[in-house]
Amino acid sequence: MRLRNNPKANDILAAHDDIVILDGKQYRGKWNELFGNSNPIYIEIGMGKGDFIIENALRYPNINYIGIEKFPSVMVGAIKKIDQLEKIPSNLKLLKEDAILLTEVFGKDEVNRIHLNFSDPWPKKRHTKRRLTSPAFLDVYQNILIDNGELILKTDNRLLFEYSLVSFQNYGLHFEDVCLDLHHSEGYEDNIQTEYERKFSPFGPIYQVKTTFKGVNKNG
Amino acid sequence: MRLRNNPKANDILAAHDDIVILDGKQYRGKWNELFGNSNPIYIEIGMGKGDFIIENALRYPNINYIGIEKFPSVMVGAIKKIDQLEKIPSNLKLLKEDAILLTEVFGKDEVNRIHLNFSDPWPKKRHTKRRLTSPAFLDVYQNILIDNGELILKTDNRLLFEYSLVSFQNYGLHFEDVCLDLHHSEGYEDNIQTEYERKFSPFGPIYQVKTTFKGVNKNG
Ligand SMILES: C[S@@+](CC[C@H](N)C(=O)[O-])C[C@H]1O[C@@H](n2cnc3c(N)ncnc32)[C@H](O)[C@@H]1O
Ligand SMILES: C[S@@+](CC[C@H](N)C(=O)[O-])C[C@H]1O[C@@H](n2cnc3c(N)ncnc32)[C@H](O)[C@@H]1O
Repeated sequence: MRLRNNPKANDILAAHDDIVILDGKQYRGKWNELFGNSNPIYIEIGMGKGDFIIENALRYPNINYIGIEKFPSVMVGAIKKIDQLEKIPSNLKLLKEDAILLTEVFGKDEVNRIHLNFSDPWPKKRHTKRRLTSPAFLDVYQNILIDNGELILKTDNRLLFEYSLVSFQNYGLHFEDVCLDLHHSEGYEDNIQTEYERKFSPFGPIYQVKTTFKGVNKNG
Repeated sequence: MRLRNNPKANDILAAHDDIVILDGKQYRGKWNELFGNSNPIYIEIGMGKGDFIIENALRYPNINYIGIEKFPSVMVGAIKKIDQLEKIPSNLKLLKEDAILLTEVFGKDEVNRIHLNFSDPWPKKRHTKRRLTSPAFLDVYQNILIDNGELILKTDNRLLFEYSLVSFQNYGLHFEDVCLDLHHSEGYEDNIQTEYERKFSPFGPIYQVKTTFKGVNKNG
């Protein structure tokens, strides 16, 4: 993340308003209007330099993708990759936002799937609340996801994954599938790798859990 | 399991009626009478040759242990180990029984903890129902465990563990703790190894999940 303190990052973002959204609140409840269709909306929270979300958008043109990232300097990495494409995919947007504020950006039931890929592990116990799989974030996800919408976590970080399985179960999430070695399992041939996944998969297993909020009481 | 077809196994079991119980039904609701105290009862289902349950019984004299195994020929292995001890631990019994029949052997709330160690994985999909972590077995466990009693699964088998996490969550079990590499994690220094664990831990991680039936509706 060399770019984290790039002072020109905000200028670069502003110059790419065909793909970058700086103020997401204006589209709350209206994302389908922005995309110009009623296709499902899949988001990645903490997209980093965008490898995963860009490849998804190219492979699945009938799904709308929004890559979310809180650091402008990191988003610049994704913009550079998109600039190299022949044309900007019409089903892809990049949103600068902090995950904890996503209910201000998406209406109830506006999102069909959430991807969390290699989220920051925050290994210290006193930082538990910062993990993107802790209860305060699950509250946010529950509010924006449709009833059978999926929350999918993929990571190489064992401690984060162990924590997340417990956190998800304790919250009442429904487990659809658990895989403890994604790169050496059958049935995951359509896996799209992230930047971190390419970097860290040689050193150990990649874990993944697919959940839904099915059965979680929406009102408490 | 060389001993599986040992024709003398039943004779050996019968000759050890100070420790071996062939007909557990007679003690249903009366296990504490048999042990002569009201200490908690921990059982291991599929104890194999008994390494784990014997070491537990020696280490924790204030807990009553019952090692359960369905094959007499395998139980003989445990008997031989106990015969080598200075004296038979008074807090240890070996029960010949099939897991699916345990409600005939234990009353409601008679068991405080269930250990499943390296249960047979039954990897083929059509054998799912034979796995000791499938719903029909969970029904049995729920019936004999006290409300906050623990069900703890430990295994090196990735597919069985992945399946079990989903099966446990879908059943409504509460997750207390998940560990995806027991031998390289902090906080598990009191782990007691099983025979299979010693044999297979050099080749990959040992997984463990601690659950309770807390919150699972007893009547449905
Ligand atoms: C370790 S990187 C992983 C990047 C990418 N998903 C991958 O797998 O290659 C985590 C990313 O999440 C972003 N992030 C962390 N917390 C966030 C939050 N609360 N809201 C939005 N993005 C966040 C970080 O800035 C970082 O770019
Ligand atoms: C793979 S061995 C593991 C033995 C021991 N727990 C260990 O970790 O070394 C599994 C054992 O479970 C026993 N077993 C399998 N199904 C059972 C059942 N339904 N009831 C009781 N025991 C069973 C098998 O006979 C076998 O001895």
